[in-house]
Amino acid sequence: MIDITLPDGSVRPYPAGTNGMDIAKSISNSLAKKVLAIKIDDNVCELSRPINGNAHISLLTWDNPEGKEVYWHSSAHLLAEAVQELYPHAKFTIGPPIENGFYYDIDFGGQVPSGDDLGKIEALMQKLAQQKNPFVRSEVSKADALAYYQERDNPYKVELIEALNDGEITFYQQGKFTDLCRGPHLPDTGYIKAVKLLNLAGAYWRGSEKNPQLTRIYGITFPQTADLDNYLQMLEEAKRRDHRKIGKDLEIFTFDDEIGPGLPLWLPNGGIIIEQLEAFAKKTEEEAGYYRVKTPHIAKESLYLRSGHLPYYADSMFPPMILDGEKYYLKAMNCPHHHKIFGAQSHSYRDLPIRLAEYGTCYRYEQSGELMGLMRVRSMQMNDAHIYCTEDQFEAEFRAVNDLYVKYFKRFGIDKYVMRFSKHTPEKLGQKYIDSPELWQKTEDMVRRVLINSNIPFIEVEDEAAFYDPKIDVQLWSAIGREFTIATNQVDFAQAERFDLWYTDQNGEKKRPLIIHRAPLGTHERYIGFLLEHYAGNLPLWLAPKQVAILPISDKYMDYAEQLLSQLRTHHVRASIDTRSEKIGRKIRDAEMKKVPYMLIVGEKEAAEGKISPRRHGKGDLGTTTVSEFMQQFNEELGE
Amino acid sequence: MIDITLPDGSVRPYPAGTNGMDIAKSISNSLAKKVLAIKIDDNVCELSRPINGNAHISLLTWDNPEGKEVYWHSSAHLLAEAVQELYPHAKFTIGPPIENGFYYDIDFGGQVPSGDDLGKIEALMQKLAQQKNPFVRSEVSKADALAYYQERDNPYKVELIEALNDGEITFYQQGKFTDLCRGPHLPDTGYIKAVKLLNLAGAYWRGSEKNPQLTRIYGITFPQTADLDNYLQMLEEAKRRDHRKIGKDLEIFTFDDEIGPGLPLWLPNGGIIIEQLEAFAKKTEEEAGYYRVKTPHIAKESLYLRSGHLPYYADSMFPPMILDGEKYYLKAMNCPHHHKIFGAQSHSYRDLPIRLAEYGTCYRYEQSGELMGLMRVRSMQMNDAHIYCTEDQFEAEFRAVNDLYVKYFKRFGIDKYVMRFSKHTPEKLGQKYIDSPELWQKTEDMVRRVLINSNIPFIEVEDEAAFYDPKIDVQLWSAIGREFTIATNQVDFAQAERFDLWYTDQNGEKKRPLIIHRAPLGTHERYIGFLLEHYAGNLPLWLAPKQVAILPISDKYMDYAEQLLSQLRTHHVRASIDTRSEKIGRKIRDAEMKKVPYMLIVGEKEAAEGKISPRRHGKGDLGTTTVSEFMQQFNEELGE
Repeated sequence: MIDITLPDGSVRPYPAGTNGMDIAKSISNSLAKKVLAIKIDDNVCELSRPINGNAHISLLTWDNPEGKEVYWHSSAHLLAEAVQELYPHAKFTIGPPIENGFYYDIDFGGQVPSGDDLGKIEALMQKLAQQKNPFVRSEVSKADALAYYQERDNPYKVELIEALNDGEITFYQQGKFTDLCRGPHLPDTGYIKAVKLLNLAGAYWRGSEKNPQLTRIYGITFPQTADLDNYLQMLEEAKRRDHRKIGKDLEIFTFDDEIGPGLPLWLPNGGIIIEQLEAFAKKTEEEAGYYRVKTPHIAKESLYLRSGHLPYYADSMFPPMILDGEKYYLKAMNCPHHHKIFGAQSHSYRDLPIRLAEYGTCYRYEQSGELMGLMRVRSMQMNDAHIYCTEDQFEAEFRAVNDLYVKYFKRFGIDKYVMRFSKHTPEKLGQKYIDSPELWQKTEDMVRRVLINSNIPFIEVEDEAAFYDPKIDVQLWSAIGREFTIATNQVDFAQAERFDLWYTDQNGEKKRPLIIHRAPLGTHERYIGFLLEHYAGNLPLWLAPKQVAILPISDKYMDYAEQLLSQLRTHHVRASIDTRSEKIGRKIRDAEMKKVPYMLIVGEKEAAEGKISPRRHGKGDLGTTTVSEFMQQFNEELGE
Repeated sequence: MIDITLPDGSVRPYPAGTNGMDIAKSISNSLAKKVLAIKIDDNVCELSRPINGNAHISLLTWDNPEGKEVYWHSSAHLLAEAVQELYPHAKFTIGPPIENGFYYDIDFGGQVPSGDDLGKIEALMQKLAQQKNPFVRSEVSKADALAYYQERDNPYKVELIEALNDGEITFYQQGKFTDLCRGPHLPDTGYIKAVKLLNLAGAYWRGSEKNPQLTRIYGITFPQTADLDNYLQMLEEAKRRDHRKIGKDLEIFTFDDEIGPGLPLWLPNGGIIIEQLEAFAKKTEEEAGYYRVKTPHIAKESLYLRSGHLPYYADSMFPPMILDGEKYYLKAMNCPHHHKIFGAQSHSYRDLPIRLAEYGTCYRYEQSGELMGLMRVRSMQMNDAHIYCTEDQFEAEFRAVNDLYVKYFKRFGIDKYVMRFSKHTPEKLGQKYIDSPELWQKTEDMVRRVLINSNIPFIEVEDEAAFYDPKIDVQLWSAIGREFTIATNQVDFAQAERFDLWYTDQNGEKKRPLIIHRAPLGTHERYIGFLLEHYAGNLPLWLAPKQVAILPISDKYMDYAEQLLSQLRTHHVRASIDTRSEKIGRKIRDAEMKKVPYMLIVGEKEAAEGKISPRRHGKGDLGTTTVSEFMQQFNEELGE
């Protein structure tokens, strides 16, 4: 008998040679139906793999990222099986799982399929899946493996095999298809219930333009048909909500070739959103006792050598400018500048905590291929602040920061969020992490205590801390369930030393402050990108660039429209008149397209009675009313 | 007889050989007493210079900058005369007039005077002045001039003479002192009534470290003793009001070696001033129909090639960063970015004027020797905006901009200001100025018309326009009469073409907009520097970083102080408690030093009665009152 340790720490005896499926069945029938693969110690394996000694295991299902990987990797083999049947001369290269689904890069020779052919391949995949063909693993010698693919005239697999060690090569076969593969796989193709091929694209072998061009087929599969339907609906919705599309339609931001990639220009509508967000953040921070500072966007190399960002972080920074024989860098973060401000004044324990806030614009180098709308950019307006406090104050301050996060989530209707608490790993002290084991222990304990006390959902992640501090990344999910990592929180016990920051304690002695780095609204770029998707462009009234569109039915009512406009403006409403000589239907349609919250249609009746007929976007007509009644409702909605 | 044309255009006949003094006397006795020199056509000359043909002349007095130059240049000779008598071995080099006064660089050999010796020299200058020695001009041959200084072993003058052409060399003599000099000078030393030697400094011959070191004596002189007294008082006051001193005392900004020269860090107190100014500007601009935009601080070289800033302006820009094989520059101005925003959307004539505003931070390279506090910096937060309008709209828009300037001047108690209207010179079209004579004429006429119609004091200056547009620099004077150039206004008829900016007119045709560049509050850096001097640090209540200091007489009243603090904070008052265990006198003194507008002294009486005893900085005690009465007064003052 061997000892099998389950993830909850419980240990069960099993006969030597038992396997994942046996263990699943021994636990429950429902688990046996769901289980896809097994993790034995640190290796993900097929359920059929015999276990011959004591081991820690976990049974992987669709709910584990590693379970999904096995599922989608197996699906790539199913795709290849179908392609082989339909295109016998196709040569296969690699077919990995990806974040959502899988792809396979294939050399189709002269006979490249078109998008229209995907349905045929998809249908055959469905049929082959229903055959429930087992994935059969076999170990092959390097010579046999090479011979197999040389016979099939496949130089790609030959090249792959040549890089492998003899004795470590395996093939997997299902139905009539055999593939060079390390595995693992599902027990059989029957687990795959719903198939969708999404896309065809060109791709170079090994990513190099010098190599032959291949055809990449993207697909996704699910254990239930309903999951696929939901996914496709979500894709459709995500496309509709794509912040790049909405940003263009609503004239929020743009890019320009002569300015540079990843450097958004914020149009007047974007300017309003930014101003509103900043006003909101500043008001909140003022009430919470933050001071605002302003720092330049550049600094000498010496600043970043002191902070330790150089040389380690150089690849993520813009290259230096050489001035008067010195290197100047665009700032990639605001912290060193804020530390200099803290250090420029002397502080007693009575002055602490000191909270320095700035909407500071930072510049980071991202490769141009990585840039994506507002999500991956090179210029970032950051909702930054640094809190300098004593150890005694830490818990209250850190708690207040977390409360601020939660307050913001509520304000923006974000229901689902989790804080990823990234910790150090004791084994890597002195290498990946600063070598202060007691400080790590103490700080992480403090952080954990606050997270528990604040009742915030969080997960702990080993070995993902920053060099000198535990880190909290805030993950949140938009209204349609897409995940965004918006903000970071850090607890810093090292920079005060590097910058020689101190305060005088009760006994007149110099002490180092603890530093909390926080940015609850992240960067304008990413946060506004998120909000555009989250609200599908229907921003709440307080953020909407244009709040009211006045739509005169004809030019005859222009005077009355002007009168309304100036009335609304005295109430600080962001309003304008559609002065075009278009039909009213067209004006309404355009205002709806631009997602203007309120429309005031102005015709004979309204002008004669001195009233208005407001229409709420997404709700329709609200009936005839007076400006003052309308303003009451408007202000109520603003306050929400 | 010859025709003499006076500055007012009137022509008078004089006998040939008449001179400046004759002309002055022929006009009035009082003018003859005041006149210092004469400008004949374009040359400034002594009053005694005979005029032999028709000429345009103007008589220069102390009120003309050129009159002051002659006065101070003559004073430098007087200084040299005194030095020669006291230090017979001194060798003279050059002694020019400067903005305020004059200096003379002298090689004293071993016997360098100290600051204490200046009084002695000063006294002798006064005595020599009273001798009313005439400044006598003589033409000398190059050989004689060289011989004169070789005899006196003065290599400096020899070097100077060697660079001159024979036949163009003149000496001037007053009393026992003779100097190589082009002149002109005052009639005699008696015009100099008040003398002050200000300073001794080291200086290298011809400014090069490789040359011998000389001693520079700075001085200033005046035609009336009262003028000198006023000047010295102003100097004292300027020192007290120096924004660098106040900025440090009030903890408004700082510099840091590791960040770089000319790059101010704004401390929390500075952050408040910036936020208040921006809120004020934004509110004003919102009411005036401006849109706010946001643009990155960098752009590719191609943007500045298009705008024409590169290569011409390259020396004033930071050096480029090379990224992905492209040059990126820190922006030195916001205009090209704003033009890109205008160009990113299509506009009908109905949409114009479009006013794009941004507090954009620009970076300009100033040599480190030129940097001075907040006045000459390398990072500039600019109160920038660009107005895109039709030709018909120009006058109203430009007028509105000027009205805004005047409104701001009032708000900040600036009584004295003038707009310098810099125009092109037709001779330099195609070289210094873009070659569009009709456009220049038309635009300058429009600008002049608006300036006249708005009743704004202005002067016209030839040959100082920008390359492609007439320019208006706003000069203003602080409370103590120091001049500042804060803001620039430009009318741009060329950039729309370069950036291919257009709108559709009534007939559906593409038209170029006119562009007004404006920045009424200039940069935060220079404007706040100006305000600190203007108000001597006593900022008006709405700008004061800390508005109220609560000063408990002892720790016993801390609870009551805390209570007051939270009351004030609900009214958005920027208040804090002096928690130190210092005597109340010390607390008051420190709050006065920090120029906190209101102090609330809290003792037994106040705590018992629930009242406060406010004290207004500069005014003293205001008597005992309630918080709500105090708030009423406070808010009234805020609103002013």
